[in-house]
Amino acid sequence: KMAKKVCIIGSGNWGSAIAKLIGRNAAAYDTFHTRVNMYVYEEEINGEKLTEIINTRHENVKYLPGHKLPENVVAVPDLVEASKGADMLVFVVPHQFIRGLCKTIQSNIKPGAIGISLIKGMDHTDKGLQLISDVIRKALSMDVSVLMGANIASEVASEDFCETTIGCTKEENGQLFKKLLQTPNFRICVVQDPNTVEICGALKNIIACGAGFVTGMELGDNTKAAVIRLGLMEMMKFAKAFFPDSPPEIATFFESCGVADLVTTCYGGRNMRVSRAFVKENKPIEVLEAEMLNGQKLQGPETAREVYKVLKTLNIDESEYPLFVSVYNIFFNKHPVPSFIECLQNHPEHM
Amino acid sequence: KMAKKVCIIGSGNWGSAIAKLIGRNAAAYDTFHTRVNMYVYEEEINGEKLTEIINTRHENVKYLPGHKLPENVVAVPDLVEASKGADMLVFVVPHQFIRGLCKTIQSNIKPGAIGISLIKGMDHTDKGLQLISDVIRKALSMDVSVLMGANIASEVASEDFCETTIGCTKEENGQLFKKLLQTPNFRICVVQDPNTVEICGALKNIIACGAGFVTGMELGDNTKAAVIRLGLMEMMKFAKAFFPDSPPEIATFFESCGVADLVTTCYGGRNMRVSRAFVKENKPIEVLEAEMLNGQKLQGPETAREVYKVLKTLNIDESEYPLFVSVYNIFFNKHPVPSFIECLQNHPEHM
Repeated sequence: KMAKKVCIIGSGNWGSAIAKLIGRNAAAYDTFHTRVNMYVYEEEINGEKLTEIINTRHENVKYLPGHKLPENVVAVPDLVEASKGADMLVFVVPHQFIRGLCKTIQSNIKPGAIGISLIKGMDHTDKGLQLISDVIRKALSMDVSVLMGANIASEVASEDFCETTIGCTKEENGQLFKKLLQTPNFRICVVQDPNTVEICGALKNIIACGAGFVTGMELGDNTKAAVIRLGLMEMMKFAKAFFPDSPPEIATFFESCGVADLVTTCYGGRNMRVSRAFVKENKPIEVLEAEMLNGQKLQGPETAREVYKVLKTLNIDESEYPLFVSVYNIFFNKHPVPSFIECLQNHPEHM
Repeated sequence: KMAKKVCIIGSGNWGSAIAKLIGRNAAAYDTFHTRVNMYVYEEEINGEKLTEIINTRHENVKYLPGHKLPENVVAVPDLVEASKGADMLVFVVPHQFIRGLCKTIQSNIKPGAIGISLIKGMDHTDKGLQLISDVIRKALSMDVSVLMGANIASEVASEDFCETTIGCTKEENGQLFKKLLQTPNFRICVVQDPNTVEICGALKNIIACGAGFVTGMELGDNTKAAVIRLGLMEMMKFAKAFFPDSPPEIATFFESCGVADLVTTCYGGRNMRVSRAFVKENKPIEVLEAEMLNGQKLQGPETAREVYKVLKTLNIDESEYPLFVSVYNIFFNKHPVPSFIECLQNHPEHM
């Protein structure tokens, strides 16, 4: 069999961390072509091109400083050139760029190529929420797996022990990506339930906002645990309603992409932190986004808004999702933060 | 129908917190006799009897200072007198006292009386692990439910919002205890899977030791999330092996007694903290128990030892439970702490 050519599309913090693992495995296993192309959006760093820095000093000084990338990972500034002839495409760009990138390469995809999306978040269209993997599937007509888990990029780059989940439609493709990505400290479970794996990664951010509210109100660990658990229950219910044709496996919520990522996000993630500041500092969310995120949008509130729209579209009773709806109402309808607890007090889980 | 007489057996931190809720509900609902007896092990506090302090100042100054108990909760120093004629018995004493207490009251139990155990931990006999609720069932020949969840006593006493789980064998009894215990901020789910509810509360302490190890080794949130999740997988597997006749419902692990209590325990509990100190300060566990717990035994190591015995007795391959076995080996066989990570690297979950 021919060695598989791998291309990583994206070179931010997460893309660079994962390139460390992929580069090493590509060099180690005959299954893969040793050279791994990494598409890098070209930038000038103190007068030097970022691709040149990566290809000579083997470090992404802008997005993952302090970590050496394997020398067989080659930064390529042209997306078409980088992905040409690739058998395996690893998508790891901010979600707002995915449509444009797919358009650029769609006439150059090698027949039989497969993809994996590491992109967090959902796409919002006029028709409602869409999974990022579905955007890729439709644009490129390829089989696309997803990888999600409790994976803070800097800790993965430091090679601290962690787990992750690959959700695939075809077991063999999931296993091939597992071989490409698994290392002694980056442990992978493969499940054939890609929708659930992906939607967990989006919905968790709503719950993390709730965790931020209760932290901001100085409630303790009991309350936070209840928020995490009730949020998980709503995730499960929403996944069932949103994918009526392929209902989620309950076991998938026990994977790293489910409960583990949720816990990490609710204890340390940016949605928790900004939402906590929203309570403590009593500033509008836009101001906090400017102050704390360099003006980037916080994902939790946006996802809460989109989920709320889906509930309306599907004609679902709001009272089935008190946590999701309350996060939406606090951010967008000026509901007072303490109303969050009132909503949880009437949760259908306890009726 | 006659109003049900309630007796709380125990008056420590958790017993006193729960007496606040029970006292109020007993006064509010016709279902219950307003007076609630609370068995209090008599102690002298600065020359005053603890029962007298509770019955005059309505505060357990030793175990729950700063919280008023409802006046209808009456402290009784004699166990037989306290429990006489009770229809509902709430057991909330340290687990080492349960056999003796049961012996004291076993000839005085009202026919048809039902119980609920809030006691954490397991009983260790020559024959192996035994659930505390089973000890009570056998000694008193009554139906016994259990209540477990992410419930730090001080936060419950402060009436911060939280959840808990009642596991019952008879739905009607579970619902009756729910009525007695649920408040707007103490929300209860009832499941007919008492064994799982109870064993989660014991096994979580082993996992919390693992969480303490990785915290002590200064590993980050990814690793901790992996420990929590892999621990949960071993809990599920162990419950299946340990109760072959009544296999656990997978959904029970999503209840407050399962994932929620586990998370809280792994982030803030004493097993986590002492195990972290075990790594950081490199002192024997007995020394840390003396320094940090006033000489009380830490539950996690003891439970790990008992679980290890059960694995041997049931002839189960150790490699099926790398996390549980590693915690045991680190505490009792001087395995180095970093070996904990090596065990996780070979976890069957990723094979």
